[in-house]
Amino acid sequence: MQLGMIGLGRMGADMVRRLTKGCQQCIAYDVQPAAVERLKQEGVAGAASLEDLVAQLDKPRAIWLMVPAAVVDATLDQLAPLLEPGDIVIDGGNSYYHDDIRRGQQLGAREIHYVDVGTSGGVAGRERGYCLMIGGDPQVVQRLEPIFATLAPGVGAAPPTPGRDAAANSGSTAGSTAEQGFLHCGPQGAGHFVKMVHNGIEYGLMAAYAEGLNVLRHADAGRHAREADAETSPLRRPQFYQYDLNLGEIAEVWRRGSVIGSWLLDLIAGSLASDAELTNYTGRVSDSGEGRWTIAAAIDEGVPTPVLSAALFARFSSRGDADFANRVLSAMRHDFGGHAEKAASPPPGPTNPA
Amino acid sequence: MQLGMIGLGRMGADMVRRLTKGCQQCIAYDVQPAAVERLKQEGVAGAASLEDLVAQLDKPRAIWLMVPAAVVDATLDQLAPLLEPGDIVIDGGNSYYHDDIRRGQQLGAREIHYVDVGTSGGVAGRERGYCLMIGGDPQVVQRLEPIFATLAPGVGAAPPTPGRDAAANSGSTAGSTAEQGFLHCGPQGAGHFVKMVHNGIEYGLMAAYAEGLNVLRHADAGRHAREADAETSPLRRPQFYQYDLNLGEIAEVWRRGSVIGSWLLDLIAGSLASDAELTNYTGRVSDSGEGRWTIAAAIDEGVPTPVLSAALFARFSSRGDADFANRVLSAMRHDFGGHAEKAASPPPGPTNPA
Amino acid sequence: MQLGMIGLGRMGADMVRRLTKGCQQCIAYDVQPAAVERLKQEGVAGAASLEDLVAQLDKPRAIWLMVPAAVVDATLDQLAPLLEPGDIVIDGGNSYYHDDIRRGQQLGAREIHYVDVGTSGGVAGRERGYCLMIGGDPQVVQRLEPIFATLAPGVGAAPPTPGRDAAANSGSTAGSTAEQGFLHCGPQGAGHFVKMVHNGIEYGLMAAYAEGLNVLRHADAGRHAREADAETSPLRRPQFYQYDLNLGEIAEVWRRGSVIGSWLLDLIAGSLASDAELTNYTGRVSDSGEGRWTIAAAIDEGVPTPVLSAALFARFSSRGDADFANRVLSAMRHDFGGHAEKAASPPPGPTNPA
Amino acid sequence: MQLGMIGLGRMGADMVRRLTKGCQQCIAYDVQPAAVERLKQEGVAGAASLEDLVAQLDKPRAIWLMVPAAVVDATLDQLAPLLEPGDIVIDGGNSYYHDDIRRGQQLGAREIHYVDVGTSGGVAGRERGYCLMIGGDPQVVQRLEPIFATLAPGVGAAPPTPGRDAAANSGSTAGSTAEQGFLHCGPQGAGHFVKMVHNGIEYGLMAAYAEGLNVLRHADAGRHAREADAETSPLRRPQFYQYDLNLGEIAEVWRRGSVIGSWLLDLIAGSLASDAELTNYTGRVSDSGEGRWTIAAAIDEGVPTPVLSAALFARFSSRGDADFANRVLSAMRHDFGGHAEKAASPPPGPTNPA
Repeated sequence: MQLGMIGLGRMGADMVRRLTKGCQQCIAYDVQPAAVERLKQEGVAGAASLEDLVAQLDKPRAIWLMVPAAVVDATLDQLAPLLEPGDIVIDGGNSYYHDDIRRGQQLGAREIHYVDVGTSGGVAGRERGYCLMIGGDPQVVQRLEPIFATLAPGVGAAPPTPGRDAAANSGSTAGSTAEQGFLHCGPQGAGHFVKMVHNGIEYGLMAAYAEGLNVLRHADAGRHAREADAETSPLRRPQFYQYDLNLGEIAEVWRRGSVIGSWLLDLIAGSLASDAELTNYTGRVSDSGEGRWTIAAAIDEGVPTPVLSAALFARFSSRGDADFANRVLSAMRHDFGGHAEKAASPPPGPTNPA
Repeated sequence: MQLGMIGLGRMGADMVRRLTKGCQQCIAYDVQPAAVERLKQEGVAGAASLEDLVAQLDKPRAIWLMVPAAVVDATLDQLAPLLEPGDIVIDGGNSYYHDDIRRGQQLGAREIHYVDVGTSGGVAGRERGYCLMIGGDPQVVQRLEPIFATLAPGVGAAPPTPGRDAAANSGSTAGSTAEQGFLHCGPQGAGHFVKMVHNGIEYGLMAAYAEGLNVLRHADAGRHAREADAETSPLRRPQFYQYDLNLGEIAEVWRRGSVIGSWLLDLIAGSLASDAELTNYTGRVSDSGEGRWTIAAAIDEGVPTPVLSAALFARFSSRGDADFANRVLSAMRHDFGGHAEKAASPPPGPTNPA
Repeated sequence: MQLGMIGLGRMGADMVRRLTKGCQQCIAYDVQPAAVERLKQEGVAGAASLEDLVAQLDKPRAIWLMVPAAVVDATLDQLAPLLEPGDIVIDGGNSYYHDDIRRGQQLGAREIHYVDVGTSGGVAGRERGYCLMIGGDPQVVQRLEPIFATLAPGVGAAPPTPGRDAAANSGSTAGSTAEQGFLHCGPQGAGHFVKMVHNGIEYGLMAAYAEGLNVLRHADAGRHAREADAETSPLRRPQFYQYDLNLGEIAEVWRRGSVIGSWLLDLIAGSLASDAELTNYTGRVSDSGEGRWTIAAAIDEGVPTPVLSAALFARFSSRGDADFANRVLSAMRHDFGGHAEKAASPPPGPTNPA
Repeated sequence: MQLGMIGLGRMGADMVRRLTKGCQQCIAYDVQPAAVERLKQEGVAGAASLEDLVAQLDKPRAIWLMVPAAVVDATLDQLAPLLEPGDIVIDGGNSYYHDDIRRGQQLGAREIHYVDVGTSGGVAGRERGYCLMIGGDPQVVQRLEPIFATLAPGVGAAPPTPGRDAAANSGSTAGSTAEQGFLHCGPQGAGHFVKMVHNGIEYGLMAAYAEGLNVLRHADAGRHAREADAETSPLRRPQFYQYDLNLGEIAEVWRRGSVIGSWLLDLIAGSLASDAELTNYTGRVSDSGEGRWTIAAAIDEGVPTPVLSAALFARFSSRGDADFANRVLSAMRHDFGGHAEKAASPPPGPTNPA
């Protein structure tokens, strides 16, 4: 099937490559001519402008946007006037699903179809395939199945889920494409809604591993002297914190047979294998919106998400955004208890140097 | 290698089966003669008593306890007098690592070796193999390697971690058994310490999925009428909560290519495939100690674990343990605002019945 | 000064009474004629309709709305056409500040002034006075000062803040009305923004007391037998949980001299004095929106609010909204560990009945 | 009544002063002779050594320790041999209640009485009085009532709690001293247990204010440009974050009539009045143990404390103790998404400089 791709960043370019390898026909466009040129050298058809892209595509057209969420609207403003009734626009980026609903209505008024696709897989997706969560009209989504099936990992990427056959026979999952790695989740916005929650979960999973590894890393707390002053909580039983654990080896052993095995754990094991102290990072953790939107949705729905929100707020704090709150705490402590803030101290040395 | 196994519950019996299949020689014992009998009918050697077990084992003996944490001490009280210097006792259950340290000292005074093994894998372990986190003296642990290697999943159970080869060449992981699925983590207690944190992480991972699925499940919140009174927060934009999502299909699609793929997700997909509403469960979630101990360790170490603790506390709340706190809140609301508690209402019907 | 009051519920009626007692002239209106009648019998002027209210007021008019947030817009739709340039509408309820900004613009287009006032004080406000957080144009707010000053508690309601004099002399707080208990916080919406965060803090404070009292209440945990099974985490050191504490007396003692003394604590002491077990409540805790909006604002701002959000989510959970998430957890536990859910058990009896 | 005071730091010395002013007879001792000298110059009797202190006291003696928790045991080791049956030792510091139970048993074996007193009030206590939470044998506690009554704030320090009279008449609080500001909470350890939870609550209250003020402080978020890149979550509706709020004035207005009035709020108002930006603090917040112990007790009891633990963990994070966890997060983000960490940026300037 033929597809126009707008946006040839890491994700967009790799998706073009996977589609091309899977015998789909792509015409690639990016505002950076160099990005188009790179793919052309790999044998992919390129377009010099949006007009050129539209002109090269057979009608009804299918055009996939893989651009930063912040420029989707500007791109659509330029693209939509070039399109005709029956054409399909797919937003495969990280848009907020509220925007999908609005865009779907705006384009729908001109009989242009809009499909939102939450895409997970990251830099590994070119090889592993992409997990696709799709929102839009059923017939339109169905028209795009060759594209989705080529981008997705395919049935063989995971062992069958026990019990699904029975469910399929009873009709509830008959014909479902979920096992191929793509799913029509519902009407416009549903794809990005599901992807949003996917990322919210991702934040929680990541934080669970990170916190646990931090506990393991400090299992030697009893070997370090704590200052003995009223501002420092003493460690009552240092004999229980005498372990010097190898986190990389622990992450590796968990990859086989344990309950907490996962793809994220595989990545952690890789990171720790090459840099046991993760010295390449300072610990300022960004967030790109989906985690925030997940909590906002949970609050609207009245659904408790203490874990997902704690994971989000830890990222905020990692960037210093709790600083003023902390100063308020220090001020109170000073005022009721005469407590002065302690200066940051260098990492304590071992108490048993031998 | 020869091993005595005490405790033939689900875990212990399956481990005997895996060891036997892997050509290790087991002698099995349980306080329930029927449990011994079952394994004897599968061709495993059985013992009629602790004395009988000890008598049948070649010296120096290796005996694995797979009994509830609460009865380990009582079992050791009976077993230890029967043992001799050089014998090894392995606790493969869910003991608190503080107990390991004490037991190791007590048995060590009599030159009996004590090894603690955190075992993950659950009911699937017989086929998948068990992830083993091991604490004890290096030479003793090494003597047991045939046992560990047979119980563990083996190298082939996961693809190699990129970057490990280089690390191995540089010496840091040379000779490590982590890739086989078992790891000597450190001195006595280190195995159960690592397993404790493993379970703490497990709680966090589980809660992340559970919260996210709950947000997805309530994506239809805008289709239900909320009561319009001062005690109910209104849903300002119901048009954004009109999705009727199929959680089982979503869990299935996430299994391939997504960032949040994991063994736990595989299980969730299976559960939802066979019972989309999970009506077999009421939502009273137990905890068996490791999650609590993880938080206690984090607090001792001064390590923030907001996600892991939130996951633990959600389990407490699921069992009604927040009830008095909630009554305090209701009392305050009544006293300052005159707010009366609302009665629990039946699930609201759709506002758009058509 | 003259003021029209629309909405004679508990808050509105009491505010009329406080204003009247403070020699302000009120004309009272409510959609329920009986509510108007009650105040007329207390000597307050009443209006039979919005038209009547508007007719009775001197120009430029000042009209205070004290109606549920959900009906403010509907009331304004009826009221605004009756008003003239220069008139002032005050929303003293719990509106979302986004609505204030919109309303301010809509009314401003017709040269009608809009002032938003976050009002704290609850049922005690009639006697104690109301804390007023105000948003709007400075000149308009200033015109209303007699009203605000009468509703507010006044300078004498709290001892002076040390250090404020110096600040006042240096100009930063010169002329501030904060010490009287009302404050012009900023332009339209600022009053309800500050009130919103006030309530977000309130949720956190309430939860802190509630959780702490719950810990105290279970200080006798060691006197109750826990079931000894793999689904129940044992209490390792029951000797440390043998206290039978009198929560009402503890709340009372904290009221004097402690760091945690507060008006909320005063209320708790009163509740516990009359009903030590709070048996009048079931623990379903409502939330009326401000806590949710506070978290939404924090997320927009990138400000970590782990405590305020945990307090909000505990309320959601108190109403059963975590149930599906909990069933997901139980399903996972069943699937990986063979764990069956435990039934809810009756409260355990004492182990030491003597 | 006569009392020996050991430990003349800020708290101990002020308590001696309050007792002396209240006509109790103190003999003061400290390991620092200068501290004794200061009080002697104020007319208080001093002791040159523990032996001297014991010799000067009438039998049966009452001796109050007001020393750091870390040196209580060492002090008791020296003091106990000098004492006789019937003497009373009071620990008024911040001991862990586990230690109280042990000490009570050890001293009790020699018929020396041990009383634990949780003391709240801080530097303001000399004037306001101290809130005292007491554990020990009833008769012993009763003997000390003149001391407690003098240290405590007294009935007049707070208005009566409505409903207490009825309770008193019905017997449940008859004769209670709670209204005077001291309370016999239960047997040994109960005083410090209640004080421990008091401080746990204190952490939660403080964090609630601090988080809320941080939300207020960032109410101008829409006036600052956020970088527009994939690593920065955009602020969708900057028009709602245009407020420049005066936090000191807001804290002041909340002091009168609002639901969140408290002594801690009084302190905050004072801090902000003298230093609106709290520039004297860096935001490294210490914790002195009680908050940790509260969570440990909650976990033992199975009581959910999501708010109190979030407050504790925020303090840990303020000191950098989440750094490794954050680096793990950054490493994962890099590995699955190719995300590079952003450098810390200087505070953004306003977008609307005019």
